[in-house]
Amino acid sequence: MIAGYQIQCQDRVDSALNRLFSPTQPELERLYQAMRYSLFNGGKRVRPLLVYAACEALGGEPERANAAACAVELIHAYSLVHDDLPAMDDDDLRRGQPTTHIAFDEACAILAGDGLQSLAFEVLADAAHNPHGAELRLAMVSTLARAAGPAGMVGGQAIDLGSVGQQLDQGALEIMHRHKTGALIEASVQLGALASGQADEHALKALHTYARAIGLAFQVQDDILDVESDTATLGKTQGKDQAHDKPTYPALLGLDAAKTYALELRDQALHALRPFDQAAEPLRELARYIVERRS
Amino acid sequence: MIAGYQIQCQDRVDSALNRLFSPTQPELERLYQAMRYSLFNGGKRVRPLLVYAACEALGGEPERANAAACAVELIHAYSLVHDDLPAMDDDDLRRGQPTTHIAFDEACAILAGDGLQSLAFEVLADAAHNPHGAELRLAMVSTLARAAGPAGMVGGQAIDLGSVGQQLDQGALEIMHRHKTGALIEASVQLGALASGQADEHALKALHTYARAIGLAFQVQDDILDVESDTATLGKTQGKDQAHDKPTYPALLGLDAAKTYALELRDQALHALRPFDQAAEPLRELARYIVERRS
Repeated sequence: MIAGYQIQCQDRVDSALNRLFSPTQPELERLYQAMRYSLFNGGKRVRPLLVYAACEALGGEPERANAAACAVELIHAYSLVHDDLPAMDDDDLRRGQPTTHIAFDEACAILAGDGLQSLAFEVLADAAHNPHGAELRLAMVSTLARAAGPAGMVGGQAIDLGSVGQQLDQGALEIMHRHKTGALIEASVQLGALASGQADEHALKALHTYARAIGLAFQVQDDILDVESDTATLGKTQGKDQAHDKPTYPALLGLDAAKTYALELRDQALHALRPFDQAAEPLRELARYIVERRS
Repeated sequence: MIAGYQIQCQDRVDSALNRLFSPTQPELERLYQAMRYSLFNGGKRVRPLLVYAACEALGGEPERANAAACAVELIHAYSLVHDDLPAMDDDDLRRGQPTTHIAFDEACAILAGDGLQSLAFEVLADAAHNPHGAELRLAMVSTLARAAGPAGMVGGQAIDLGSVGQQLDQGALEIMHRHKTGALIEASVQLGALASGQADEHALKALHTYARAIGLAFQVQDDILDVESDTATLGKTQGKDQAHDKPTYPALLGLDAAKTYALELRDQALHALRPFDQAAEPLRELARYIVERRS
């Protein structure tokens, strides 16, 4: 079921994203190509799916979450482009394709990432893209800016880079992941809830618990896949984390305990959704998918 | 007079900027240091000055323009950090000091720039920083996002990089500058006008004409200074544009004609301000300063 829902969300966000990309000057063609390349590279659109699913869980119309779905994916795409740069993770492959700085060049990749970030906030602020009242659009901008910035995702990347070769304990590793990937996943769920126009405090709190749990589960599973999968299935260089001596859950807990931990987190997420009815089923499916996926 | 006003604006924006920087985790200390280093490096705060001066020209309280002043400077600072990177302009010095990737490292500089951009939008959206109604704050976010993004500043950087070694005519050079530096200067004036709470269509149009003219004058004068000043006065490596075979106004028009052009642009800017009273004097002084400065 999640595969069908995923394709639906992917189609929905991809056509919304497509509408954003029309260069105003012929001189800007290459920059826009690099942004499109970075954005349309076969990504699974997990964060847009979370936006749509959270919106629907609260009875909202998914079409009214298009801007939010675009915005979180624009932030995610920019972070991957910058993360792959030689000065950062130095990755040549992303989902089996050359990374943006390989397909274009480093300067173009830096600028494409920068431009994707600006676009995320433009899309949320602009009534032409985001059909909500000013207060709701502003709440979305604030939420995304905080999640993307130094106290969120960017901070997580910095902690990650600073921790290579260090002995992190589980607490420190979780702080890193809560910033690096957790913040944007939590923001995706919160933006979806806001886009429903029907988010009360109770629901937001339950969704926040859900988002924290799946955000961490996602990362634990990523670490497990880095150990277990081969490069072809993964679409990126396998064993990269180990080779870079990065702290991972399998390294810290052992592979079996890491798998158990991923399942516990899934169960925490499902437990948080108990007050919700059938409309939250896509969120439940996603929690299951995250720990079952092979790539 | 402009020197005194400049110091006043500098103090005002610097204390507002200072309040933004408190890392939430000890692990984020180095990232925040890099962001502070990039932001507090003796910059002239020309864009915040434009924000405050445009606000005051329309009778607004400058304190109510603090968030806008911070936001434009955060965007400017991030653009310099990324612009100085080895893959971009590869500059080791900025205002006589090591650039961020030299003082820290490349990865940290990329992330500091990314984080500064997010913070700009957070500051504008957040009522705790920006004391205006939701509609006005949203208009500021939209204006800045558009000016900073691929259709504005980032696009200008891309055009600039793509034009090295090419024969640009004056029209093409202006398209580049209107994106690369003009867009953020125009946004600064517009944000200041919005922060006054008293911007009518007439005033906005006049201020737009003013901003376009000084934005271009600023760039023409920069090109002139790159030819004329020595490295010590300029605080960056002199002759860099020529060494990189970048198109410049002196190269295109000759040095004397470039100087005449800068003065014409100053006069266009002053002409646009004729409907304004004494409150627009700082804007007038700035137009004069731009073409008279030696660094």
